[in-house]
Amino acid sequence: MIFKKLLILSGVLVGFSATCSAQSNEWRALNPDKTVLLTLPQGKVVIELAPQFSPAHVKQFTQLVRSGHYDGNKFYRVIDGFVAQGGPADGSPQDKAVPELKIEGDWSTDKNWQFTKVQDNDLFAEQTGFKEGFPLGHNPSENKAWLLHCPGIIAMARSNTPDSASSHFYITNGQAPRYLDRIMTVFGRVVYGMNHVQSITRTATIEGEEPISENAQTPMLSMQIMSDVSKDEQIHLEIENTEHPAFIQKLADRRARKNAFFYKKPPPVLDICQTPVLSRMVSKK
Amino acid sequence: MIFKKLLILSGVLVGFSATCSAQSNEWRALNPDKTVLLTLPQGKVVIELAPQFSPAHVKQFTQLVRSGHYDGNKFYRVIDGFVAQGGPADGSPQDKAVPELKIEGDWSTDKNWQFTKVQDNDLFAEQTGFKEGFPLGHNPSENKAWLLHCPGIIAMARSNTPDSASSHFYITNGQAPRYLDRIMTVFGRVVYGMNHVQSITRTATIEGEEPISENAQTPMLSMQIMSDVSKDEQIHLEIENTEHPAFIQKLADRRARKNAFFYKKPPPVLDICQTPVLSRMVSKK
Repeated sequence: MIFKKLLILSGVLVGFSATCSAQSNEWRALNPDKTVLLTLPQGKVVIELAPQFSPAHVKQFTQLVRSGHYDGNKFYRVIDGFVAQGGPADGSPQDKAVPELKIEGDWSTDKNWQFTKVQDNDLFAEQTGFKEGFPLGHNPSENKAWLLHCPGIIAMARSNTPDSASSHFYITNGQAPRYLDRIMTVFGRVVYGMNHVQSITRTATIEGEEPISENAQTPMLSMQIMSDVSKDEQIHLEIENTEHPAFIQKLADRRARKNAFFYKKPPPVLDICQTPVLSRMVSKK
Repeated sequence: MIFKKLLILSGVLVGFSATCSAQSNEWRALNPDKTVLLTLPQGKVVIELAPQFSPAHVKQFTQLVRSGHYDGNKFYRVIDGFVAQGGPADGSPQDKAVPELKIEGDWSTDKNWQFTKVQDNDLFAEQTGFKEGFPLGHNPSENKAWLLHCPGIIAMARSNTPDSASSHFYITNGQAPRYLDRIMTVFGRVVYGMNHVQSITRTATIEGEEPISENAQTPMLSMQIMSDVSKDEQIHLEIENTEHPAFIQKLADRRARKNAFFYKKPPPVLDICQTPVLSRMVSKK
């Protein structure tokens, strides 16, 4: 009985600590239930999911990952400076069985809504900023916010209608295709192994070259939720806390460019997609 | 005598055709004297040099390439979402022997100066646009123009003073670090093999990981001017002509997004660094 009480108390304490971490710690640990391990032939990629912003997409993606849906799928549409897109063979039973999702392209904000603002009058948004590590756009005039298509985000592909995404996804591999913001559902971002994402074989690198054969397409060896991975294969990461004063100070420093290297100051603006949110490996014991 | 006249005539015609190509052809061939073939372990990379914008840097770089300066050099500073930087061992005799260059960060324009405008009120420039395939910034209020740090450009590294670049260079591998515009000398851009540039081994992918050993750094197997490469190893490319009406129409179409996929129209703006200028392989006989 005493043991049980202690356990409950411990749970409360853990919960309290997690709630406080937004204010108190410069780094936050990834939740292994909301983290994906994608294994490619060239190496491992870790993706943080964003159920707080795109709950239905994360729920369906997580179920698909757990069912083995993506294991052995291929990146069949890979365009340099744009995206690596993958999924099951088009029109296969495996493909058709997946229900279509309602788009989660943006959401409504109110007066109490907050984020770590980075820039006003960005080319595609009235404001940009970070929330819980994710790059966001925000139009106060519309009371709308959305996840941005910065390099390394994962989003669901779809056909022409907005509510037609199912399981095919893409990861952005070059300059941010921001024109896709709000009309696609972004649901996570790569926090480790972006070099492996960028080296996924292009399916046609250049006009006038033959498209590569299906055999040459990069496969997903496996896709797993991190908490399902065997303990010795798990990768534990911490991510910079974008709500912490230290991060906010870093943004100010980056904008000011006080280092002597900047003999002439650049314009005091920040492209949010070129503003890093760092990851670090948690040391293994 | 008649034969000689014909040759001269032919020369004139060729010259005329080259002069006219800015208006008349949708594609232009790369000049092999102003093109670099960089061979990496993972594949071949082709770089178009920009002597029309950065003449002193291109001249010195070309001499260094021809002297074998870069063969066997390594990419010793490779940061994800930023740059792959390479050159000779710091402070080595080979390194110290290279003269320092005056920065060619921007240049003056006059009323007759023209380019293919892409966007007004870009975050970092009053205007952006293309000239001869290269992405440029332009501030009419200052009468200044400059080459942009879009993904895949090559620029000279330097120390804190502006006129300290010599032979160490970097290629941008992620979102454009536009804050470096005008304070560094961009002198070319990758027109083929960007996937190989992006897969150059990072020297420290993530905080908390050990830096990689020097042996694991990606080497430049060779760096050659294309006209010096044996004929059967040459790569011949054509690049979209950014002065041609067809390209200008493509920009307008891209801005309008009339395809049914855009069920909701994105803002009618273009990020120049996400606006492709295509390359195509010239068919081999």
